Amino acid sequence: MNTAQAQLGAVLAAGGPELTRLLERTEARLGEVAEGHGEELARHSGATLSAGGKRLRPMLVFLCANGDGDGRLVAAGAAVELLHMATLVHDDVLDRAPLRRGRATVFAEGGRLPATATGDLLFSRAFAELASTGSPDAVRALSEASSALARGELMQRADAWQPDVTRERYLERCRLKTASLFAASCRLGALFGGRPAMADALGRFGECVGLAFQMLDDVLDVSGPQERTGKPRGTDLRDGTVTLPLILARERDPTLVELDPRLTAADAESVCDRIAATGALETAREQALTHVAEAKRSLAQLDLPAQRREALELVADGVVERYA
Amino acid sequence: MNTAQAQLGAVLAAGGPELTRLLERTEARLGEVAEGHGEELARHSGATLSAGGKRLRPMLVFLCANGDGDGRLVAAGAAVELLHMATLVHDDVLDRAPLRRGRATVFAEGGRLPATATGDLLFSRAFAELASTGSPDAVRALSEASSALARGELMQRADAWQPDVTRERYLERCRLKTASLFAASCRLGALFGGRPAMADALGRFGECVGLAFQMLDDVLDVSGPQERTGKPRGTDLRDGTVTLPLILARERDPTLVELDPRLTAADAESVCDRIAATGALETAREQALTHVAEAKRSLAQLDLPAQRREALELVADGVVERYA
Repeated sequence: MNTAQAQLGAVLAAGGPELTRLLERTEARLGEVAEGHGEELARHSGATLSAGGKRLRPMLVFLCANGDGDGRLVAAGAAVELLHMATLVHDDVLDRAPLRRGRATVFAEGGRLPATATGDLLFSRAFAELASTGSPDAVRALSEASSALARGELMQRADAWQPDVTRERYLERCRLKTASLFAASCRLGALFGGRPAMADALGRFGECVGLAFQMLDDVLDVSGPQERTGKPRGTDLRDGTVTLPLILARERDPTLVELDPRLTAADAESVCDRIAATGALETAREQALTHVAEAKRSLAQLDLPAQRREALELVADGVVERYA
Repeated sequence: MNTAQAQLGAVLAAGGPELTRLLERTEARLGEVAEGHGEELARHSGATLSAGGKRLRPMLVFLCANGDGDGRLVAAGAAVELLHMATLVHDDVLDRAPLRRGRATVFAEGGRLPATATGDLLFSRAFAELASTGSPDAVRALSEASSALARGELMQRADAWQPDVTRERYLERCRLKTASLFAASCRLGALFGGRPAMADALGRFGECVGLAFQMLDDVLDVSGPQERTGKPRGTDLRDGTVTLPLILARERDPTLVELDPRLTAADAESVCDRIAATGALETAREQALTHVAEAKRSLAQLDLPAQRREALELVADGVVERYA
């Protein structure tokens, strides 16, 4: 069992049988969505959609709820996962990615057009799931998160290859492209799980966890190792994506200011080594940990059952300890 | 003044000052959306989003409503147009289209990634607009239409280059990729415009108009002329998209069964001429007209003010008489 699996096991134990039941119902619901909207989606979903994800966002929905609620909780869990899947499918088109989680992507199997349309269909089904709850507040939460994801992508592209991306701008991008959906997941859990008064605080918890998650993702892109992350080191550098490790390293080693669009995979590895040599990875990791600490502080003020608080804290710790 | 402008003028006259006011408010609302969600969207929207469309779908929303309703009618009009725009932006990425309505596309200005993200952002804002109405029924109507659009795209891709696409399958594709949003527009107008009991009949009207619209679009792709349609004849043939004129022509001229992926623009024009020579264009146009007639029959059973019925009939006639 690896670290990630051990962490998941601990969260599931703390979340109790109710969490496991909700995750199983979500899996079944995602399967129904994949099978129920045309042969094309059904074919593609087999390969990349219905299997393999950690279901971290649905897990946040359920852990922020009290009890296993009614069907609306599962609808919300399915909706946030569908939205997440939609962005993955579109990302794979843009990155021309052949594989995800070791399986052929929709893009690789079908090409650009089917993959783009499949992403659009998953987007649409995410909103259809939430509409079934009858809650305009929930639809609003998802549409704001969905807008933020797209704006984050646009910001990332606008900042690509730039020598002067600030930490503040980097954080804003992380908030948009990752933390917004984590926050929405927690809000939806509070809303449908009988804790509407905690929606703001739990949303803040989710946002902090999301920020830490993205920051650690960006550290892993530089640190590897590839056997753990499943992708070569320095992928962001070759895309021109300026992340926190590079921003911090540039302050310490000005020769890192210019990014070269012609970097080979081997060049990128050596830039990764130079970034690591500045100590930027440790600093970035510490900054991610401050967001984990803030996430836990958002929980401290809330009147949650001890076991539920423990499960949420495990999730928060887990995003930074993924490959520790 | 060309035919299309004259038709629009007649619809606006029949719709009265209330229709003009609603369309103006929609335009203002679309401008707010374009300006209010980041500099990237604002930049791209200037070129292709905020100007130039016929706003046919918002017009259907308003013509199916009684009076000018409350803000929800404008929100619905903006939502259907935003969803339509999202699909156009994604289509332009897939077609690598440099121009739309004579202006540079988001794809041409920004590239694949910003254009894909811009489409996703427009999708998200469409649902945010509808969520603001507080009506889960409305969100459901839009998400079903949005799913249908994506499924229509997937079906079109699956059927590309196929020698044996049936008329039934073609009609189903038109229903998914075009008629569903026309139908949703009419339903939303009925819902927010004080005519909920007419939602089904008006939705049926919208569906028939949408079918006729798509069928005529496909006739125009073969018939041209390019000066009117703004694109070369035979674009569908070169994409492998099998449309009604080709399906009908194949029944009459079996040499048309095989589509050649290597067709040049000149080759495509000559295949268009061969399709036209079979009389398929007239037959396809007649079939579009049967849907217009059915649209009008859906109105006949309804207790609508005479001027409003006239305006809706003008829209229905207009989709087939666009370049008559």
